[in-house]
Amino acid sequence: MSALINDTPLSESATVDRKAVQPFPRSTKSYIKGSRADINVPMRRISQHNTAGISGSASNPDILVYDTSGPYTDPKSSIDLRKGLAGVRDAWIDERGDTETLSDLSSQYGRARAADGELSHLHFTKITKPRRALTGKNVSQMHYARQGIITPEMEYVAIRENQKKVNFDQYKYGRIHEGNSLGAAIPETVTPEFVRQEVALGRAIIPANINHPEIEPMIIGRNFLVKINANIGNSAVTSSIEEEVEKMTWSTRWGGDTIMDLSTGKNIHETREWIIRNSPVPIGTVPIYQALEKVNGVAEDLTWEIFRDTLIEQAEQGVDYFTIHAGVRLAYVPLAATRMTGIVSRGGSIMAKWCLFHHKESFLYEHFEDICEIMKAYDVSFSLGDGLRPGSIADANDAAQFAELETLGELTQVAWKHDVQTMIEGPGHVPMHLIKENMDKQLETCGEAPFYTLGPLTTDIAPGYDHITSAIGAAMIGWYGTAMLCYVTPKEHLGLPDKDDVKEGIITYKIAAHAADLAKGHPGSQLRDNALSKARFEFRWEDQFDLSLDPERARDFHDQTLPKEGHKLAHFCSMCGPKFCSMQISQEVRDYAAGKGEQVTDKTLSQGMEEKASEFRETGSSVYNDA
Amino acid sequence: MSALINDTPLSESATVDRKAVQPFPRSTKSYIKGSRADINVPMRRISQHNTAGISGSASNPDILVYDTSGPYTDPKSSIDLRKGLAGVRDAWIDERGDTETLSDLSSQYGRARAADGELSHLHFTKITKPRRALTGKNVSQMHYARQGIITPEMEYVAIRENQKKVNFDQYKYGRIHEGNSLGAAIPETVTPEFVRQEVALGRAIIPANINHPEIEPMIIGRNFLVKINANIGNSAVTSSIEEEVEKMTWSTRWGGDTIMDLSTGKNIHETREWIIRNSPVPIGTVPIYQALEKVNGVAEDLTWEIFRDTLIEQAEQGVDYFTIHAGVRLAYVPLAATRMTGIVSRGGSIMAKWCLFHHKESFLYEHFEDICEIMKAYDVSFSLGDGLRPGSIADANDAAQFAELETLGELTQVAWKHDVQTMIEGPGHVPMHLIKENMDKQLETCGEAPFYTLGPLTTDIAPGYDHITSAIGAAMIGWYGTAMLCYVTPKEHLGLPDKDDVKEGIITYKIAAHAADLAKGHPGSQLRDNALSKARFEFRWEDQFDLSLDPERARDFHDQTLPKEGHKLAHFCSMCGPKFCSMQISQEVRDYAAGKGEQVTDKTLSQGMEEKASEFRETGSSVYNDA
Repeated sequence: MSALINDTPLSESATVDRKAVQPFPRSTKSYIKGSRADINVPMRRISQHNTAGISGSASNPDILVYDTSGPYTDPKSSIDLRKGLAGVRDAWIDERGDTETLSDLSSQYGRARAADGELSHLHFTKITKPRRALTGKNVSQMHYARQGIITPEMEYVAIRENQKKVNFDQYKYGRIHEGNSLGAAIPETVTPEFVRQEVALGRAIIPANINHPEIEPMIIGRNFLVKINANIGNSAVTSSIEEEVEKMTWSTRWGGDTIMDLSTGKNIHETREWIIRNSPVPIGTVPIYQALEKVNGVAEDLTWEIFRDTLIEQAEQGVDYFTIHAGVRLAYVPLAATRMTGIVSRGGSIMAKWCLFHHKESFLYEHFEDICEIMKAYDVSFSLGDGLRPGSIADANDAAQFAELETLGELTQVAWKHDVQTMIEGPGHVPMHLIKENMDKQLETCGEAPFYTLGPLTTDIAPGYDHITSAIGAAMIGWYGTAMLCYVTPKEHLGLPDKDDVKEGIITYKIAAHAADLAKGHPGSQLRDNALSKARFEFRWEDQFDLSLDPERARDFHDQTLPKEGHKLAHFCSMCGPKFCSMQISQEVRDYAAGKGEQVTDKTLSQGMEEKASEFRETGSSVYNDA
Repeated sequence: MSALINDTPLSESATVDRKAVQPFPRSTKSYIKGSRADINVPMRRISQHNTAGISGSASNPDILVYDTSGPYTDPKSSIDLRKGLAGVRDAWIDERGDTETLSDLSSQYGRARAADGELSHLHFTKITKPRRALTGKNVSQMHYARQGIITPEMEYVAIRENQKKVNFDQYKYGRIHEGNSLGAAIPETVTPEFVRQEVALGRAIIPANINHPEIEPMIIGRNFLVKINANIGNSAVTSSIEEEVEKMTWSTRWGGDTIMDLSTGKNIHETREWIIRNSPVPIGTVPIYQALEKVNGVAEDLTWEIFRDTLIEQAEQGVDYFTIHAGVRLAYVPLAATRMTGIVSRGGSIMAKWCLFHHKESFLYEHFEDICEIMKAYDVSFSLGDGLRPGSIADANDAAQFAELETLGELTQVAWKHDVQTMIEGPGHVPMHLIKENMDKQLETCGEAPFYTLGPLTTDIAPGYDHITSAIGAAMIGWYGTAMLCYVTPKEHLGLPDKDDVKEGIITYKIAAHAADLAKGHPGSQLRDNALSKARFEFRWEDQFDLSLDPERARDFHDQTLPKEGHKLAHFCSMCGPKFCSMQISQEVRDYAAGKGEQVTDKTLSQGMEEKASEFRETGSSVYNDA
């Protein structure tokens, strides 16, 4: 039954999976420098081939894209999972002079685990002492923002978000659509000051625990690129530390902007340590899961003291945001009783059970200000959990769901009083026509705090395909203003995702997020579509693959039908064969219409039409010279 | 190179793939009788297990769902691909007394192929003589509808669409959402008279060639269930007749409502014959593809005469709808010259080339009334092709696209003057915020003729995942009013789909169509979601699998983590393990809240709360008795 027991250490020989550190094809890591030497923002630079053949002859620019993969895809960085990543933010945190390094862990549980010799094979090799705010200090990015301070983190994300600026010269690469009003006010150029303002207003968060200096800072807010989160984590039933660390590097490789570690089995403290020390992206958790482990799974035995110790334990490890289901209040529990699928959130159901058993208000709600004190001492962000989210189409937008949302709005104001960064979690299962109401209500109720939604799934009838049922809802709600989308894998409702499922879920959600960016008219986001479409039209197969979200699959699918190397140079493809190629014909039409390089306008075209019709007839069309 | 040459006959030993004829698990074929003995409308009846365990004890009703799979999933029917299916509609067509059986094929090409001894190994075994309208007669369903006649076809589809009525008793199965105004006027009960009206108005079509009596009639219109089409077809480069027939049975098994045969290689006449004779769903084609084959791929050599003979050839085989790109007019071609990706429709580019070469108006446009004469003699429906659809995000909603749409609107009026059934094809590649404009313009320009769209794809950057990029757009445009969605497979832009890709594309589009039905508030459509969610909540794993769109995958994914038979009875799953099961806890909450069967209201709950809190504490909660 070893598969059921999670006590596998990261094996001695463990090195990072080679597939997860290889740079993407024809891609190099480019760092964009900020105002100081230690601000170096990573981008993936994709180089293209020259245009050649029937489409004329020209060079095509490199395209820089947002890169979440961290040092893993930089051949110049040396990776050792046992040592963890370098601390990008160490100096920044130090300089601010508002923190101290503690001599030991503050959490009782944390100390006990560290001292337990029987666990030494699981311990992370290099445990550093935790950092905490000096008494009376608040180290949250929101606090700095409200003081008018632009932190290096803010400048970093400003550079990172500037998709248009980094590709400025290339941007006039075909027609660009403007987004519509649903996209709110996204500036053409993202400045550090704009970032500061958005964070100060609570419209965006930069999850960045002072104990997670390894991250490459990123921002979550609706006036920025839509982000995606990937859930990983073992359960009591299956998987090991090594697998989880690998899922993390794998997830960031394919585009996960943050990772939630939802482990619920044994040794989740140690698993988390390994993940955080090696993660270039923010890590979120649901601390109630671990607290429940500590009381042997008996929800009613949970206490504020155990929960508090768990928060501190995880905050000192470096968790960047906590999902806290403080909106599940005693009075709302009955609202869920008549539902089709009751309470489907694990955290929500645990708290509901606790409230019912004790017939008391939730200790999370009652101690919310105490929680805020912890959050601001480490800069952990709130992700206020939607414990009463609908678990089926039938339960969407019901009284239980919206009652909880009201409370989350109230708690947002409390958190903001403490300058604690806050985002709000959202559903769940919602049919398309009820999605917008969720977004509108959230913006209104929660004062424009970033929304972070799971899907939503737009139908219940497709287990095995819930990445797709939910991508539909995710793309729509992202367009309407959701800042981060929590991915759903094909295994949702059925089992734990393996590596392939994780990748499938991430790519699906990158699609949803990007579709939302396009619909919002996010400056710069359409460039990659235009570059890929131009490559497609010009039969630059390799560039089409390399510019895509998943170059491996694109190449593989092409080669399944036309495996030979020559076919990647061919000016036709397996769908139509050489004679039926509309791209070919349309290039002819273009050449014909454009004549000898003159400006193509309706006027010149109609004037020249008759003349050129004869010319076209005389010269013929050797379209099939590649066939 | 035999794989490149499509002259493989349906082998002597060819029987239908066993996987494609097996009934779905716990499903039986039910036929609902109409007003006459020969109207028997197939439904798939899915039986459920009893509720047992913590959720109480009760039986669960059978759920009847729309069934496109034809006789293949009926163990009582004997299938012989060499004989074809029985003619469901033979008597109906006969009775109308407005057709004659011809002594020979009317098409020159058809006769030549039939007489060619060298092709005898490819010929379908049982070729029946074609049927045609008597001189002066119009045999279209629209014509009958406008005469006030309710045909058996209309009654058949009325029964078939009546998803609420067939499950009437079960329908109060949890909360049901109403759709919103975008869904237009869908009646609670679909009557034959309602079908007649919609067909008479041109708002819906029943593709039903008199030479395809084998079909189980279906309807395409925005006040009916959203339908999906699956494209199959060989190309010059790959695949055989046998494969194509298999793709057809495979497609209908998984839910394809119509099939388009887009073959472009050798022997497409014979391939089509095999497909039609064995297809229980309407077949569509793009006749210009075959016409182009007849002139050896030289677009400029196409003539009206060759095209006309092709239409008649295919109409007499039984093709139910023709895609005709009559909207690609000479004057519009220059509009495509400045595009990012020119003309991506094969039919569109062929016609553009022809127009340019001859500097003449398109012969399809010029001969449109002649085409109508052919259509109404066999009841072939128009699918007016969008030859200028955008092939990239950059080209969405541009002048070329909308100029063509205007012409399609004009041609719709011409077709309706002839009582010819007509639908309109739509894009393509469109970012989310520009999708609704497509639907609105189509409804306005084309007098509410059904819209039939390809996706649209909402981003260009994910080759290998274009079933997903397009499912997002498809679900949205389906909700806005599109009547049929043409599927996109994962191989789009990269290669020809194999069987797995076809299935993936179909399930993805069933999701999009169903999500649209839910959002429109289609009466009856939410029942399946509710039934599945109830099964999920009650840990009836088998029912959850069997009610899903793909029972095989759902079961397989579950078993990958928890393979043992006992785990399919377990009241927990691999995601959370026994201790963290929110479903379990939520059932406890429900039991607790509901007490001894009393009505659950906020009032009774709050009254009983304190009392029950003690009771709950005393009795404890043996939630984990299955673990």
